[in-house]
Amino acid sequence: MHILLTNDDGINSDGLYKLYEVLGKEFKITVCAPEAEQSAIGHAITLSRPLHIKKIFKSNDFLGYAVSGTPADCVKIAVRSILKKRPDMVISGINHGPNLGSDVMYSGTVSAATEGAILGIPSIAVSLTTYKNHDFRFAAKYIAGLAKKVYKFGLADGILLNVNIPGLPKNKIKGVMITRQARSMYKEKFVIRKDPRGRAYYWLTGRARWFKKPEDSDIKAIEKGYVSITPLQFDLTAYGYIDKLKEMVI
Amino acid sequence: MHILLTNDDGINSDGLYKLYEVLGKEFKITVCAPEAEQSAIGHAITLSRPLHIKKIFKSNDFLGYAVSGTPADCVKIAVRSILKKRPDMVISGINHGPNLGSDVMYSGTVSAATEGAILGIPSIAVSLTTYKNHDFRFAAKYIAGLAKKVYKFGLADGILLNVNIPGLPKNKIKGVMITRQARSMYKEKFVIRKDPRGRAYYWLTGRARWFKKPEDSDIKAIEKGYVSITPLQFDLTAYGYIDKLKEMVI
Repeated sequence: MHILLTNDDGINSDGLYKLYEVLGKEFKITVCAPEAEQSAIGHAITLSRPLHIKKIFKSNDFLGYAVSGTPADCVKIAVRSILKKRPDMVISGINHGPNLGSDVMYSGTVSAATEGAILGIPSIAVSLTTYKNHDFRFAAKYIAGLAKKVYKFGLADGILLNVNIPGLPKNKIKGVMITRQARSMYKEKFVIRKDPRGRAYYWLTGRARWFKKPEDSDIKAIEKGYVSITPLQFDLTAYGYIDKLKEMVI
Repeated sequence: MHILLTNDDGINSDGLYKLYEVLGKEFKITVCAPEAEQSAIGHAITLSRPLHIKKIFKSNDFLGYAVSGTPADCVKIAVRSILKKRPDMVISGINHGPNLGSDVMYSGTVSAATEGAILGIPSIAVSLTTYKNHDFRFAAKYIAGLAKKVYKFGLADGILLNVNIPGLPKNKIKGVMITRQARSMYKEKFVIRKDPRGRAYYWLTGRARWFKKPEDSDIKAIEKGYVSITPLQFDLTAYGYIDKLKEMVI
């Protein structure tokens, strides 16, 4: 199996490197990741300017390709330009922090896997749900196993997996739950300060608030110590609302 | 009704201004839009740097607020910082060009309306499906009427509308279809050239290819000369795939 590995924290991040090490023992890996951090970039692609690609080495060994763009750019440029043959799978991560609930909309990690799915390649996004003291060992091993299952069974067209792994030691993890996306909204505000030239600047700050957190949701799984796997799609149509809308506007 | 008006083409775009003129005859409007074009930005938000806000005037009249960020940033900053009271509706557009099929994932226009919906505000994205010779008159009038209906009936929580309007004169438009998102994939490649310093650069180019284009899809409506309205959601869970995934990985 040939895996295209990317992320949104940038090619020098520890989460990506740990996954590279562990997956590299069993599979052929191509790394193509943003040269700089791209968190909260959503599904942006770069159209109005060109991209550069740089080869990155780690301890004199070739690590992969750094792209001056977004996670979705990295997947496109790897598949369309760098690789001669399509990869068998796209894996994005391991993200340093969770991608749960409505935050999935903002996630660069998830967007790379979405781009893989748009291109028809089985794709997995993976995040470790702690912001510090990251220990990626369990997560990387778990993903190696999951990748084998996905390679064997395939994924339906238009489906990708969003995996969140609790920041717990292996013996504290209770199991795996297949989940749905919770509904979150930030309790957020803009901090307003003056810059050195006296101009006001606005900086977003906030904390996630969960106001729809069903038992089978991604955030509940994490809170209970389970690995959460949510199947996602990029068909955003609200099918259940079509008839209602016909009544309303036609 | 108080409408927050934004877009992804930037505050100086004609599509936004036409909508501002037409909606302004009947409703209170606040414009808060990116200072520069943000096409294909997806649902990016700006976390790693601060934002600036500039007041923009047109022919000495106050037009609105230009933000040094993305469409989703504009909605957040307007609702959280600029406005004292939440707007009754968010309208994003009129985009200069279509937002159809899988392209919706990349769309800054749609992302602003999605952000409105995440914040619990009824939201509409609107695009004119031609790339040149834009005549926004019919589109702006149609949206004024649609906004009234949405204000009267409301939208369900978590739903936004993605409206695409054919680039045709009013008498050529056949009606309105409530649609679903088609599946598109770009026939795309990266053009590779050398920059003045001799470094290779890569620039994405391509054309949409439609490989799932059902009769009730957004692109079919446009091809047949209808206004397309697709109800969208930001819960990306592929509910129909949950049981299958349980069999596969647990």
